[in-house]
Amino acid sequence: MEDKFRDECGIFGIYSKDVDVAQAAFLGLYALQHRGQESAGIVTSRDGEMLHHRGMGLVQQVFDEETLNKLDGEFAIGHVRYSTTGESRIENAQPVVVRYKKGKMAVAHNGNLVNALLLKEELENEGSIFQSTIDSEVIIHLIARSKKTSTREALAEALKRVEGAYSLILMTEDELIGVRDPSAFRPLCIGLLGDSYCLASESCALEQIGAEYIRPVEPNEMVVIDKNGLKSYPLNQPRPISMCIFELIYLSRPDSIVFGKSVYLTRKEFGRLLAREHPVEADLVIPVPDSGIPAAIGYSEESGIPYDMGLLRNHYVGRTFIQPGAFFRSSKVRIKLSPVSEMIKGKRVVIVDDSIVRGTTSKEIVKMLKNAGAKAIHFLISSPPVNYPCFYGIATPTREELLAAIYNNDTDQIRDYLGADSIHYLSMEGLMSAMGKDHSQFCRACFNGEYPVAPIDMIRREALKNC
Amino acid sequence: MEDKFRDECGIFGIYSKDVDVAQAAFLGLYALQHRGQESAGIVTSRDGEMLHHRGMGLVQQVFDEETLNKLDGEFAIGHVRYSTTGESRIENAQPVVVRYKKGKMAVAHNGNLVNALLLKEELENEGSIFQSTIDSEVIIHLIARSKKTSTREALAEALKRVEGAYSLILMTEDELIGVRDPSAFRPLCIGLLGDSYCLASESCALEQIGAEYIRPVEPNEMVVIDKNGLKSYPLNQPRPISMCIFELIYLSRPDSIVFGKSVYLTRKEFGRLLAREHPVEADLVIPVPDSGIPAAIGYSEESGIPYDMGLLRNHYVGRTFIQPGAFFRSSKVRIKLSPVSEMIKGKRVVIVDDSIVRGTTSKEIVKMLKNAGAKAIHFLISSPPVNYPCFYGIATPTREELLAAIYNNDTDQIRDYLGADSIHYLSMEGLMSAMGKDHSQFCRACFNGEYPVAPIDMIRREALKNC
Amino acid sequence: MEDKFRDECGIFGIYSKDVDVAQAAFLGLYALQHRGQESAGIVTSRDGEMLHHRGMGLVQQVFDEETLNKLDGEFAIGHVRYSTTGESRIENAQPVVVRYKKGKMAVAHNGNLVNALLLKEELENEGSIFQSTIDSEVIIHLIARSKKTSTREALAEALKRVEGAYSLILMTEDELIGVRDPSAFRPLCIGLLGDSYCLASESCALEQIGAEYIRPVEPNEMVVIDKNGLKSYPLNQPRPISMCIFELIYLSRPDSIVFGKSVYLTRKEFGRLLAREHPVEADLVIPVPDSGIPAAIGYSEESGIPYDMGLLRNHYVGRTFIQPGAFFRSSKVRIKLSPVSEMIKGKRVVIVDDSIVRGTTSKEIVKMLKNAGAKAIHFLISSPPVNYPCFYGIATPTREELLAAIYNNDTDQIRDYLGADSIHYLSMEGLMSAMGKDHSQFCRACFNGEYPVAPIDMIRREALKNC
Amino acid sequence: MEDKFRDECGIFGIYSKDVDVAQAAFLGLYALQHRGQESAGIVTSRDGEMLHHRGMGLVQQVFDEETLNKLDGEFAIGHVRYSTTGESRIENAQPVVVRYKKGKMAVAHNGNLVNALLLKEELENEGSIFQSTIDSEVIIHLIARSKKTSTREALAEALKRVEGAYSLILMTEDELIGVRDPSAFRPLCIGLLGDSYCLASESCALEQIGAEYIRPVEPNEMVVIDKNGLKSYPLNQPRPISMCIFELIYLSRPDSIVFGKSVYLTRKEFGRLLAREHPVEADLVIPVPDSGIPAAIGYSEESGIPYDMGLLRNHYVGRTFIQPGAFFRSSKVRIKLSPVSEMIKGKRVVIVDDSIVRGTTSKEIVKMLKNAGAKAIHFLISSPPVNYPCFYGIATPTREELLAAIYNNDTDQIRDYLGADSIHYLSMEGLMSAMGKDHSQFCRACFNGEYPVAPIDMIRREALKNC
Repeated sequence: MEDKFRDECGIFGIYSKDVDVAQAAFLGLYALQHRGQESAGIVTSRDGEMLHHRGMGLVQQVFDEETLNKLDGEFAIGHVRYSTTGESRIENAQPVVVRYKKGKMAVAHNGNLVNALLLKEELENEGSIFQSTIDSEVIIHLIARSKKTSTREALAEALKRVEGAYSLILMTEDELIGVRDPSAFRPLCIGLLGDSYCLASESCALEQIGAEYIRPVEPNEMVVIDKNGLKSYPLNQPRPISMCIFELIYLSRPDSIVFGKSVYLTRKEFGRLLAREHPVEADLVIPVPDSGIPAAIGYSEESGIPYDMGLLRNHYVGRTFIQPGAFFRSSKVRIKLSPVSEMIKGKRVVIVDDSIVRGTTSKEIVKMLKNAGAKAIHFLISSPPVNYPCFYGIATPTREELLAAIYNNDTDQIRDYLGADSIHYLSMEGLMSAMGKDHSQFCRACFNGEYPVAPIDMIRREALKNC
Repeated sequence: MEDKFRDECGIFGIYSKDVDVAQAAFLGLYALQHRGQESAGIVTSRDGEMLHHRGMGLVQQVFDEETLNKLDGEFAIGHVRYSTTGESRIENAQPVVVRYKKGKMAVAHNGNLVNALLLKEELENEGSIFQSTIDSEVIIHLIARSKKTSTREALAEALKRVEGAYSLILMTEDELIGVRDPSAFRPLCIGLLGDSYCLASESCALEQIGAEYIRPVEPNEMVVIDKNGLKSYPLNQPRPISMCIFELIYLSRPDSIVFGKSVYLTRKEFGRLLAREHPVEADLVIPVPDSGIPAAIGYSEESGIPYDMGLLRNHYVGRTFIQPGAFFRSSKVRIKLSPVSEMIKGKRVVIVDDSIVRGTTSKEIVKMLKNAGAKAIHFLISSPPVNYPCFYGIATPTREELLAAIYNNDTDQIRDYLGADSIHYLSMEGLMSAMGKDHSQFCRACFNGEYPVAPIDMIRREALKNC
Repeated sequence: MEDKFRDECGIFGIYSKDVDVAQAAFLGLYALQHRGQESAGIVTSRDGEMLHHRGMGLVQQVFDEETLNKLDGEFAIGHVRYSTTGESRIENAQPVVVRYKKGKMAVAHNGNLVNALLLKEELENEGSIFQSTIDSEVIIHLIARSKKTSTREALAEALKRVEGAYSLILMTEDELIGVRDPSAFRPLCIGLLGDSYCLASESCALEQIGAEYIRPVEPNEMVVIDKNGLKSYPLNQPRPISMCIFELIYLSRPDSIVFGKSVYLTRKEFGRLLAREHPVEADLVIPVPDSGIPAAIGYSEESGIPYDMGLLRNHYVGRTFIQPGAFFRSSKVRIKLSPVSEMIKGKRVVIVDDSIVRGTTSKEIVKMLKNAGAKAIHFLISSPPVNYPCFYGIATPTREELLAAIYNNDTDQIRDYLGADSIHYLSMEGLMSAMGKDHSQFCRACFNGEYPVAPIDMIRREALKNC
Repeated sequence: MEDKFRDECGIFGIYSKDVDVAQAAFLGLYALQHRGQESAGIVTSRDGEMLHHRGMGLVQQVFDEETLNKLDGEFAIGHVRYSTTGESRIENAQPVVVRYKKGKMAVAHNGNLVNALLLKEELENEGSIFQSTIDSEVIIHLIARSKKTSTREALAEALKRVEGAYSLILMTEDELIGVRDPSAFRPLCIGLLGDSYCLASESCALEQIGAEYIRPVEPNEMVVIDKNGLKSYPLNQPRPISMCIFELIYLSRPDSIVFGKSVYLTRKEFGRLLAREHPVEADLVIPVPDSGIPAAIGYSEESGIPYDMGLLRNHYVGRTFIQPGAFFRSSKVRIKLSPVSEMIKGKRVVIVDDSIVRGTTSKEIVKMLKNAGAKAIHFLISSPPVNYPCFYGIATPTREELLAAIYNNDTDQIRDYLGADSIHYLSMEGLMSAMGKDHSQFCRACFNGEYPVAPIDMIRREALKNC
């Protein structure tokens, strides 16, 4: 629907004796809704009993007051899901809850294991069965088969086997465990509510429940939250850090702090750098709402060209859409966005977006602005051209569908395809300079194809194909 | 809601290259709906791919044309569920579909394993995880862990470990396996449609799809259906046969053949024997609709007292019911059943039902008949007093809730509780005489507490309680 | 769906200071559900304020506890609707509630005015507007335009203008008015609950709320119920009485008293007379459930041939039905009814139904019994052949679709069409003899085409066509 | 929910032989959704037959592809409704469709008649009945009672009787009539699609279907659209023009042209004037999204203080909201809006909104910004304080609930209530100067209580109260 990369999941966890933990999880997931709109679930735990509710749809559709009230407990974890690897069905909704030898356990997972299939085969050979296509089930099997006496150690042992991206929250009957993979691809942060701890994919979920943002869970760190507070354990799997730069470019909510950085201010800085790299003669800077707003404001401030909201977003567009017949050719883009023609007419317009994926929406936006009378349209993108799919927990099209890859990064051809007067991307150097001293700690595989962790399952599949 | 024992499940399976197997399963489940109204599911298989759909509610609510059309295949199994052991949630809906080392497998199960918890603990100790509370998951784990090369042998090995009642249908990627436990508690029969075989809990499901009834799956028998036809294998676990007599008394549909017997004619015979054992001076024999109809007709024929439909059933009563306030005190019984007062007024009435469980409905019926002007009310039951809970796949109340158990089978007290002029049950001898030469092959534990297979899990639980 | 004549509506009204009148109306409509399943509505009134709720579907689907609780009042009227003249849409749901010069008024109507279109044209010419296609709106306009000071007199004046069938209940801000047309086509009766009066289409609705059946509203009578009790007024429009005999044959619920007669006992008497008129050599009498049950029992008693339930009705058949593909050819009839083959095999069967309309269901029943092995099938109908459509509030097919009309009442051809060995209808004389001394007061137009009131609108429409 | 004035309705009409008029109406209503989210309806007309569909909810909830496809025709009118006078129920959904002496007619109406009750009483005295509480029904009755031969003349005659605000579209069997009241309170404009005409409340609906904006329907003008094109007729009811200034301040969509003015540019101008009137020492200008955006940009441009999006809007907030328990005290505002704390911390913030009604949301926003660390908060409003309710088609709280009225326009008290450091409203002179030469043609009653048309029904009601 949207021509964007999409996050796979958002996760949340809390322990508290004082607040209604199911309500906290509900509010937290509400704030993380942008990370997954396909299904939502909450599991609570108290005295060895776990209660759960999961469903397809948005958080507010899956939960009502009655359902929430039933979810009693001192611990809660929650999950919203978009879906990359698994299919879209209720069986794949998370958190997964199981009974195993140590009692009950629930897991919420954000990321993508690159060797899940390999591990599945191995586990199946040892007699395991799989009821879903989600990665969490692999991790749970590894934990269930571990001989370690504590869940914490069993999890650590299990994680030695898995490769790829994972931020996960595991809930047992009396503790909450949060962990990030050694590459630290996906975010996960710690909050404090009163004297109780909570965990969330992004800080906006902490803000929503009134919790204080403490710090990110570190790469390779395991934190254990229980009635005694929070303890930290190292995972001892050193590996270069490769945080997902796209979280800062598009995926995370602008009001979040992610990887220790303000998402909004980072995006604005991208816009400023874009203006320095690509100054344009124009009358007006307008954003593609809402993703292009911070970069457009940054561009305007740096360039001195006035900022205006030349495209409006219709807030009543639902998830389904009746495609009108041939005559109207009115696409979902034309329902969702509309130009303020009186402002655009006769103007040279800089339109700013955070990224272009397939380019279908961008092409329609150019057409819309032309119809509205723009004299010139300069398309400015606050990140480099995306050229490669992601294997670390983001839903991306195949390489064949990526606009930049199709035209081999030739901006003349891309410009012609879009119908714009010019197109400019932020350079990789620009992007990196905005990251400051941490710039080497970010994964840029979707731009340059340099995958920090080998996508093992994919390589095996391709290898088998070519036999 | 209904004051009756309830079947736990109905199952169906078919292989055919000629017919739409999902449609066949749908029609089959429609006919088996009385065996479970809580959830329904169908899984189809073709060329190693399995498709499935499950949902809460009636067969016609769970499936629509679009869903059915998507379920393509040459094999199909289906399941309707009421629920005894597992809780009522989608996770417990069947058939269960899993991936394991030999590929995909789906299982539909009717019955109750008496050692499921024991096996679960054992499996958990070996690293298994459980996502539901249903028995099928135990059997599937046992199969997945077997070293046997064929699924058939792995299943046979698994079944050596389980105790209790099970009629089950297992579907692999290229075969359908049907099996009944050695005690043969629950029914399962074989049908022929064209030259393809199918399996169903009751023959009414075969009739519904136009298949011919062939024979029951035998106790201790495993049948394998694939493109080569049907093959039979012995399970080699000899044990006395203990078929559930309540299938004939109430659970199965009257038009079915179950355990090789016509359900309708058997019930009518119960009614005749009841009349011989308990002749009553009366003007009218009326059934409690619909469960008491065949026995009431049998009673009328044998006694010569005219039969009439003195109680009518409202066909528009749904599953939910708004309880009216104090004034009306109108119960669900009074909405569902209504007396033909003009016929009952001034008459001595024999009212016939198949069984009395808690007695709440029966008590209301007596009141209703009295209000309608009956001069005398004789409550006749075409089976002995139920005194014990079932552990073999029927949902029954605890002993403390059973009317006969409460009053220690004292019919005077039961009569007084109901407010009737007399109450008579068919004797155990009568019941058995209707079974003819097979009478020793029926389980009567709910009447006399003689459980043919020890309820292991329950015994362990009680033992632990008493420590 | 069902191959039967269908009632157009059921109505209910109550005044009480003591009971929850909305609950009473809800229960009353529940009992009248067989008279209309398309929409349902309740209006309550207290101190000049009226509250209402209407919706498409069954009573239990339209109302829930919350909705019912909001409907506060001392007066309530309710309506269930099938639909003959009006289309199926919420605008046509009743009761209709309007504001007019005297305040608020609500009307629930059962029947069909034969001059509604004529009156509509007249009213439109005087400036009236119509928002639905239901007859009640015509009556309401006539009342609103009346110069009479009381609603009662205005209604009486209005009714002088209308022709055809109507049993209606009108609620003003402080009274309930019930009235039946001079021909008395459709039923309406009076009940007493404590010291409050209520009105209902059939006595089963009175029974449902625990009210005592008092008597029918008389032809040409208007009853007014308010805080002072019940008063009766003559309408002074003498006309021969023509009560609808089909209410007794099929439409009303068997436990009702309608037109002062027990429906069940009347139907049983039809069966006895049928046996006397048409004795048959047979082994078994079976009813088409549920409509043929009382007559089948009557036939069995009179003939001495044993009665049995050879056809069973599936209680889980919903309103929608997925038509299986070509192979199964399984119709809704085959899902809904199933034969007890073990009982039918090799027998000569008398199958009894109350009426045959198009014959489609009957034909499938014969086929089903043959497949079940019946040696001979005699189709016995406890009423004469239906030959003409009804204009007085029953939904009937056109003459071209009526089986008897198609074959010109030639029973040999009808028998061949059905595939039965013989077919016999109760004669008109038989039917009339069961009515006793009142036999001349029944409308038999659907059998003999002798319409007691000229269908004016239809005649005008045909006249216009032929110009 | 939202603390804003709300438009009562949006209307749309189209005639075309070439395009799917129901689709056009659907798209048009989609664009007008902000004018009413309670119910939606479309009526089409062809050859004397009208088809319609109405329902509660958003346009996309009320219509699906199947429903739209059924609405065949050459004419269509559509309506979205919020509701001021009428209650919220399906009976009050528009367009209203009726049969009257000249055939069928459908009416969609935006506005509020100030003498509707007076006319209703008069009409009721002449025998009219009313089934809803909406004003359209009054106009329809007047038309139906008119002796004029053409609908156009009958409508003109009817409109001579009504007082107040109305933009309405009437559809007969072969024409579309659009009309605005002489005061021209509510907008209505004409578009051209190919060579067919259409009508819409705002130009954004024309843009959505690809139609060209032609001009507003003039005050006191009636336009008739049929197969011969568009004809204009004067209504001859001269009266001072009083267009609703709130359409420009908040109600209309920013990309619309309304009363001939660009809404977006007008709002930006309000912001500029606000900056000139109320310069503030600050670091940041942020809007309350989305209503405050254009004025905030205008303020920023004029003042030179940088603009930023310091408050973000959650796009996943649905219409219902589970109120969390006491601990979280998280209101709908806190779910919907969230601050970018990293940007606000330590800053002096100008927050701009278009208007303050009750002040509840504004108060929460101030609190939110304070929690985010703002050093100073200046609340700037781009319109004068609202002090009076509207009687011309806008849903407004009573005077007692309006923040400015409560504090008698004392900005010190308002500031203290909000907890801000200062509050400034645009002056009436500023507002008027932005209107340019037309400034005398705008209704400002909600600010100054000078009602251009006497609210007759209200006055009568008050008069009766005081007797």
